[in-house]
Amino acid sequence: MRMSTNIRERLIFSIAGLMLVVFCGSAFAAGVSKEMRAAFTRPAKAPEPADNKSTPARVALGKALFFDPRLSGSNFISCGTCHNPALGWSDGQKTAIGHGMQVLGRATPTVLNTAYQRFQFWDGRARTLEEQAVGPIQAAGEMNQNMDELVAELKAIPGYVSMFDKAYGKEGISEKTIGKAIAAFERTVVSSEAPFDRWLKGDKKAMNQSAQRGFDLFRGKANCVSCHQGFNFTDDGFHNLGLKGSEDEGRFAIKAIKSMKGAFKTPTLRDVALTAPYMHNGTYATLEEVVEHYNRGGDVTENLDPNMRKLGLTKQEVKDVVEFMRALTGKPVSITVPHLPTVN
Amino acid sequence: MRMSTNIRERLIFSIAGLMLVVFCGSAFAAGVSKEMRAAFTRPAKAPEPADNKSTPARVALGKALFFDPRLSGSNFISCGTCHNPALGWSDGQKTAIGHGMQVLGRATPTVLNTAYQRFQFWDGRARTLEEQAVGPIQAAGEMNQNMDELVAELKAIPGYVSMFDKAYGKEGISEKTIGKAIAAFERTVVSSEAPFDRWLKGDKKAMNQSAQRGFDLFRGKANCVSCHQGFNFTDDGFHNLGLKGSEDEGRFAIKAIKSMKGAFKTPTLRDVALTAPYMHNGTYATLEEVVEHYNRGGDVTENLDPNMRKLGLTKQEVKDVVEFMRALTGKPVSITVPHLPTVN
Repeated sequence: MRMSTNIRERLIFSIAGLMLVVFCGSAFAAGVSKEMRAAFTRPAKAPEPADNKSTPARVALGKALFFDPRLSGSNFISCGTCHNPALGWSDGQKTAIGHGMQVLGRATPTVLNTAYQRFQFWDGRARTLEEQAVGPIQAAGEMNQNMDELVAELKAIPGYVSMFDKAYGKEGISEKTIGKAIAAFERTVVSSEAPFDRWLKGDKKAMNQSAQRGFDLFRGKANCVSCHQGFNFTDDGFHNLGLKGSEDEGRFAIKAIKSMKGAFKTPTLRDVALTAPYMHNGTYATLEEVVEHYNRGGDVTENLDPNMRKLGLTKQEVKDVVEFMRALTGKPVSITVPHLPTVN
Repeated sequence: MRMSTNIRERLIFSIAGLMLVVFCGSAFAAGVSKEMRAAFTRPAKAPEPADNKSTPARVALGKALFFDPRLSGSNFISCGTCHNPALGWSDGQKTAIGHGMQVLGRATPTVLNTAYQRFQFWDGRARTLEEQAVGPIQAAGEMNQNMDELVAELKAIPGYVSMFDKAYGKEGISEKTIGKAIAAFERTVVSSEAPFDRWLKGDKKAMNQSAQRGFDLFRGKANCVSCHQGFNFTDDGFHNLGLKGSEDEGRFAIKAIKSMKGAFKTPTLRDVALTAPYMHNGTYATLEEVVEHYNRGGDVTENLDPNMRKLGLTKQEVKDVVEFMRALTGKPVSITVPHLPTVN
């Protein structure tokens, strides 16, 4: 019997999740096992495509482009306007604000650790950062830029001509190299060591008792780990969490199978304390509200993810899970503002 | 023949002495007198009001506020959106873009060296940076914020409460301390050493021959120095330059005397290569166009500043003046993105 890609994908995720749960379960009470440490430790290197290996010139170019408002049709919005490093590479808004300052339907996801993601966007419609990066630039509601015009504009700025030359040589200035450069920069936007990581390495004082209890709940009673797993605390899957008032079809628009109706990508929990409000529609202002949502098993039963159920967490247990989530937030990486090439 | 150590040393000193005389002589021949050096050298310290002396806590708070989009009514625009350090603390636009992305009537002036200015805004309607800073926050066309709401919002963010406490203690969180903190930060936004400064100090090679000729023209035939004078290259005055197509009354709205009709503040020329386009209405895209404007004595004679006249500069002389202006642009100061306090 031949499995469909969808079912196979879901099965792979489920098995991976199950293995992780088993790993983690075996380590209960006994402190931090080797396996658990491995399960939550950052991979040596984020994957990068063969045709866009990181070089300092590519990262520098991508950083300039990322922070350059001239990438938008209005010359007012840069990638960094919404993916603001001052606000955890997001914007602190319920849902994003786009061209003409119109309010959009989904929250701005953080750029942090997107290097490790298998899918980009809330609905996973892009597979690579290269593909993702050029989307919002051209979306009428977002940066509203015409790509041909942008390429012409960049070609007219000598500083950019030389930066593209150093970064991509004969490939020149094109939609493709713009996407590549931004992706190369975004792969450098990764989380730093959080209290949880120090605790994992053996520093018992790095997480307080509440956070440690929270970690047990996270893997046990609350079963957060069924979706938020591995170093980046995501299964790279899509789930309908039974959120109230959302008519957004989510992943279904990309994969028209019933289980994907209203399903959105599991976001990373790294630096999660910095990226309020939460969920694809920014409906919850605090982490407490998020955990309470899961605790009551969601609000809408239609097409609810099978993993969603009432958790029966006490008030203290909710606090403990939140305290653990806070311990996933490291010192934000320091970033300097690039000096953009100008016409003069 | 073997020289004694003594003679060898004396000879070295003589040669060094001779070199020094030649060096200084040539520098003076190029026009650097003691007085001139003094006239163009940065004052030891920018002035600051007695009730807002700079402290690290004030500067850190002001920096956070400056880059925080939550200061605007939309939560989309920060001071740094238009006064963008990536673009010479301006925005690269002809005229500014404000709330709802409406295009405004005047160009965004740079924040650079505003610490040294006697008047703020193009029409000089604010005397201090403290007063200036809270203007655009509340202007409906700019950041469109209600000040009472902003104060309440900031009071609800624990990180800001503690930052204001460290910076202003009992003064608390108010329009006044918001303005003070932003001003304290802006006083740190000052130009760095430019090629011109190194040349002034005696480094003959810091400016090329064209720039050196440009400096002579700047003080002589072109008489730019009648308005662009001193370390910050401004007289802090207001002038009508005979710009075409400007119906903006400028300073006249503040001081209703005839000479002020259509008059705007003389901007600094520090880092001027970074802040195109030029003039209060951004009408010129390049420095060449600006110098050509002066060369033809302006375009509109009505109420023209008495200093405006045809200059009779040759094409090469225009280039020389531009080359000198480029030599007023130093390495942009490196600035890190602040990490803003969040609700969680």
